[in-house]
Amino acid sequence: MMNHITPHVRRGGVSLAYIMPNLTPPVTTIEQATNYHKELQQIAPKTTFLMTFYLCRDLTPELVEEAAKKGVIAGIKCYPAGVTTNSDAGVDPNDFSAFYPVFEVMSKYGIVLNLHGEKPSVKKDSQTVDAEHDDGSDDIHVMNAEAHFLPALAKLHADFPELKIVLEHCTTKAAVDAVDAINANLTQGEAPKVVASITAHHLFLTVDDWAGAPMNFCKPVAKLPMDKRALLRAATSGKPWFIFGSDSAPHDASKKCVFKGVCAGVYTQTYALSYVAEAFDSIGKLDKLKGFVSEFGHAFYGIKKEDLVCQDEVTLVEKPVNVEEMLEWDDGTKVIPFLEGAKLHWDVEWSSN
Amino acid sequence: MMNHITPHVRRGGVSLAYIMPNLTPPVTTIEQATNYHKELQQIAPKTTFLMTFYLCRDLTPELVEEAAKKGVIAGIKCYPAGVTTNSDAGVDPNDFSAFYPVFEVMSKYGIVLNLHGEKPSVKKDSQTVDAEHDDGSDDIHVMNAEAHFLPALAKLHADFPELKIVLEHCTTKAAVDAVDAINANLTQGEAPKVVASITAHHLFLTVDDWAGAPMNFCKPVAKLPMDKRALLRAATSGKPWFIFGSDSAPHDASKKCVFKGVCAGVYTQTYALSYVAEAFDSIGKLDKLKGFVSEFGHAFYGIKKEDLVCQDEVTLVEKPVNVEEMLEWDDGTKVIPFLEGAKLHWDVEWSSN
Repeated sequence: MMNHITPHVRRGGVSLAYIMPNLTPPVTTIEQATNYHKELQQIAPKTTFLMTFYLCRDLTPELVEEAAKKGVIAGIKCYPAGVTTNSDAGVDPNDFSAFYPVFEVMSKYGIVLNLHGEKPSVKKDSQTVDAEHDDGSDDIHVMNAEAHFLPALAKLHADFPELKIVLEHCTTKAAVDAVDAINANLTQGEAPKVVASITAHHLFLTVDDWAGAPMNFCKPVAKLPMDKRALLRAATSGKPWFIFGSDSAPHDASKKCVFKGVCAGVYTQTYALSYVAEAFDSIGKLDKLKGFVSEFGHAFYGIKKEDLVCQDEVTLVEKPVNVEEMLEWDDGTKVIPFLEGAKLHWDVEWSSN
Repeated sequence: MMNHITPHVRRGGVSLAYIMPNLTPPVTTIEQATNYHKELQQIAPKTTFLMTFYLCRDLTPELVEEAAKKGVIAGIKCYPAGVTTNSDAGVDPNDFSAFYPVFEVMSKYGIVLNLHGEKPSVKKDSQTVDAEHDDGSDDIHVMNAEAHFLPALAKLHADFPELKIVLEHCTTKAAVDAVDAINANLTQGEAPKVVASITAHHLFLTVDDWAGAPMNFCKPVAKLPMDKRALLRAATSGKPWFIFGSDSAPHDASKKCVFKGVCAGVYTQTYALSYVAEAFDSIGKLDKLKGFVSEFGHAFYGIKKEDLVCQDEVTLVEKPVNVEEMLEWDDGTKVIPFLEGAKLHWDVEWSSN
């Protein structure tokens, strides 16, 4: 899958990919991250790859310090145990204190903390809940798991005000409001320490779109129409604390066509910029695209153009893009692209090919 | 599928099946209903089948009167257009007035109105919604479609107080509360005119269970944990306005293993009574089972024992039931049973086999 998909990062109009560590086994050593980086770079020499560790007990402050000094990793991703693909080794989001020594090192070296912002589901049975006062406020489920995580985000920021944090692939108005609130008192030109990334597909999807359509099932799940509108407003706001992150997940189509245990994830990489442009254009906000997909993220991560392995630039051009029905390879691998079969209106052109 | 599944009604511990009319084409004539009834009866001679019409413009008051006089139908099912399997010919639930002449005939002859209680989805785009006041209150989606339907139920009951109405396969605390409210002023022994049916699977499922598991996707979708608790409390309440209705939907497994367009429906018929008993037993309420699965429904529909084609009685016995992983037939048909592979604790025994 890596060999097939990695070239599509550039094809989708993207020069820099932030590489998630939730492999089997998770990426937790300098050697793993270095080798993985080498493999990716060989497949796509013009794409810049930033590597991450998987937050777990294996990560000592010493290891993180060494990795930071050697420039091996840009960030560490935190997965609450059990909420998404390969998150079994993840952390208990009710108590991050065991990782505070790691966060201190991260703060010191500017290593970013990438949060999968969901609390694991909590279901109470009928016998343990007082029927008279059963308003569901103690339940956690896929629809409110992100909202329930937000206090933990606020506490982390309060405890580590210098730590750079990304609330990844946020899906709710509640998350947008929380990240707005954290940044409400920034002075003009002050760089945000806490940002939220927004995917392409969450600018399109609501719960109706994954009900009965496993191809659109991802974690966090797409929420309500008002959440989708809030995400599109945030992405097009020009606020530097909302940045694009595709969270593109290439699962083989066979893993999407099952009656249970559907792999979570939507695949967007091949047409990444075209999707985002389509959403922005739908409300006449293409002028806000560059900030969202490029400038704000680069500024937050401290990436300068000379840091990229290739300085080619991409231009958005008004030109029909026919999304393939299915991406297929000779070895039988098949991946369903998001909005398969759709006709989009904005393509990408690289300054050099 | 009919030949395979019809015998499972009895196998699941059920003597009377209420037959839905959403075939292709929908059941809208006396001839269709009569022939369909004949076919079912031939396959399962000991099962009683009550037939229904599909509410649409083809149903004239004269036709309904004739069908009622001939005893062809027990009820008419109303599907809001576009909300579930084969509902394209359905009605606009924002305005039932076109069907009022039909409802008058139904009231007169005691024909039951079976409501699929969901409003079709309404999504507003970002440009038409005032961002400052965007609380989502105008949106309708799969999670609130039932709650939005409830005022229409109340209005129908107010306009036709003698019409027998079933809010079918209800899934929310809001629906339970609405039907409780309608029946709040019944005098002792007075028969309810409005009841709600509850499926076996909605006593088990929440949104988390169909996220990524198409086998558990049905319409209305299973909602939140507090809704599931409210349904279990209602089913076990002993109130005669909550009755069992399986809404069992046998789709071929191939139609559940697709990346989009998953057929809505959960298949429960083979183990229907075992599932319900399991749920009731989980909160120590087996004493309320008979009312819910048998007495209250019979009373509402006016069914006496001598009306049944077979007077065999079923007994619940404490005995392990291993739910098959997959029901398979020689012609290649496969159906995934609900809770496939699970071990249940209550089986059924017929007084004669």
